[in-house]
Amino acid sequence: MTESLHPLDEALAITPSAPGTYAGRTTPAYWNMVGPFGGVTAATLLQAVMQHPDRLGEPLSLTVNYAGALAEGPFTLQATPVRTNRSTQHWTLSILQPGADGAPVVTTTATAVTAARRETWSLADTPMPAAPAPDTLRPGTRNFSVEWLNRYDMRLVSGGLPEEWDDRGESSLTQLWMRDDPPRPLDFCALAALADVFFPRVWLRRARRVPAGTVSITVYFHASSAQLQATGTGHVLGQARAQEFRNGFFDQTAQLWNQAGTLLASSHQIVYYKE
Amino acid sequence: MTESLHPLDEALAITPSAPGTYAGRTTPAYWNMVGPFGGVTAATLLQAVMQHPDRLGEPLSLTVNYAGALAEGPFTLQATPVRTNRSTQHWTLSILQPGADGAPVVTTTATAVTAARRETWSLADTPMPAAPAPDTLRPGTRNFSVEWLNRYDMRLVSGGLPEEWDDRGESSLTQLWMRDDPPRPLDFCALAALADVFFPRVWLRRARRVPAGTVSITVYFHASSAQLQATGTGHVLGQARAQEFRNGFFDQTAQLWNQAGTLLASSHQIVYYKE
Repeated sequence: MTESLHPLDEALAITPSAPGTYAGRTTPAYWNMVGPFGGVTAATLLQAVMQHPDRLGEPLSLTVNYAGALAEGPFTLQATPVRTNRSTQHWTLSILQPGADGAPVVTTTATAVTAARRETWSLADTPMPAAPAPDTLRPGTRNFSVEWLNRYDMRLVSGGLPEEWDDRGESSLTQLWMRDDPPRPLDFCALAALADVFFPRVWLRRARRVPAGTVSITVYFHASSAQLQATGTGHVLGQARAQEFRNGFFDQTAQLWNQAGTLLASSHQIVYYKE
Repeated sequence: MTESLHPLDEALAITPSAPGTYAGRTTPAYWNMVGPFGGVTAATLLQAVMQHPDRLGEPLSLTVNYAGALAEGPFTLQATPVRTNRSTQHWTLSILQPGADGAPVVTTTATAVTAARRETWSLADTPMPAAPAPDTLRPGTRNFSVEWLNRYDMRLVSGGLPEEWDDRGESSLTQLWMRDDPPRPLDFCALAALADVFFPRVWLRRARRVPAGTVSITVYFHASSAQLQATGTGHVLGQARAQEFRNGFFDQTAQLWNQAGTLLASSHQIVYYKE
């Protein structure tokens, strides 16, 4: 690796060691509280699909289940195309690390579908909400307590962290412009990571900061690689809201548009929260 | 099996043949065009988790990927708890059938998370939409061309099939009351199936009936088994809409409430459509 490698490309650098098996390692640049930022883990799983020599088409859906925190250091990634049809291909994925006794432990499971798309009747049914252009907004303050947040340029449109943790939240809706920092041309892996950038909805809706972490995330990709290339290093408008908070878990629905108003991806997750 | 067995229980009847391996078979009662109704396939995968002797807690999330149509007849179901934490357990699942050469072929992949929940601060953030009570509405017409539709009592509130296939659809939103027919007390498996009952959004939004089929569905369960028991044989209000139709695939977001207004589950899927 050269010093000029983007931090995301450094995190996504995986090496095939056998058919469908890759060696990777965590990077400090995306470190969260007790493991890597979940978005970058999702991106790395998708990277294994993208690099696989048997891949058909482009990403359509990705589901990642966070079974346990990745420890700092090397990991093994497995990507298997279990079934290939004429226009879709189904993948099972996992990340393994050595456990306390040296035997491999599953930290992450995932499934993905790639698809060869054709041009059809199409219709955008969720218009991008009105928002001031990103260059008219200030980037959020830096020097966050967790490192990965410094890897994103985020410009809040609405629904930021509460000014006071006073249990008086009113809405779970956040809208913000975001992109990699430093800027990096958007691709499927970077988009998968962006889908997980939103802070926990429970912090906003409850106006209380409680421990929380994603259990499972799904991303549906609507964009083609050509549309991602057209998005380039431009900001993406992300919108996220919760639907239900119930006994330790809440769900989140999210949409991501580019500045031209094209819905690039929709995403959902279920998130653990304490108390 | 006795003749009084509910059709859904007949479809869900699987027999352990080895640890985590079950034998099942398709039933004519839930037959769709070229395979079983996808909802009953999802329910059967969840049933393997429910019956597994090592299961921790209740269903939290389920993702099912439809790699290929199940053929009429027997199938093998595999359910593996790959990681068990203090409060969550992560499952990988698959369905296999003999291929043309006799070797097993994967028809379906899935992941699930079960969780031991505790009482916490909770908040319903998506109120049930206003709808006339189900007993004031007429059940939909029967004798559908596909058998599985006869297994559901559906009472449309809004967003039914177009009167004419005239390419003049205006909205992708459907709201309807639904339950098993004959009535059957609601459980997690039945709820997973209900999440897939909605006809393809493309038919409604485009007012054109084109071939369509679910590629991947995710269900997040918010209800406890006690809340499902309290729902009993009552109708469930389902709401579904699409967000984007793009080059052969659209997404669907859905919510399911019981008559008391409790959000039992939220669900998402990505669906193939032709032309």
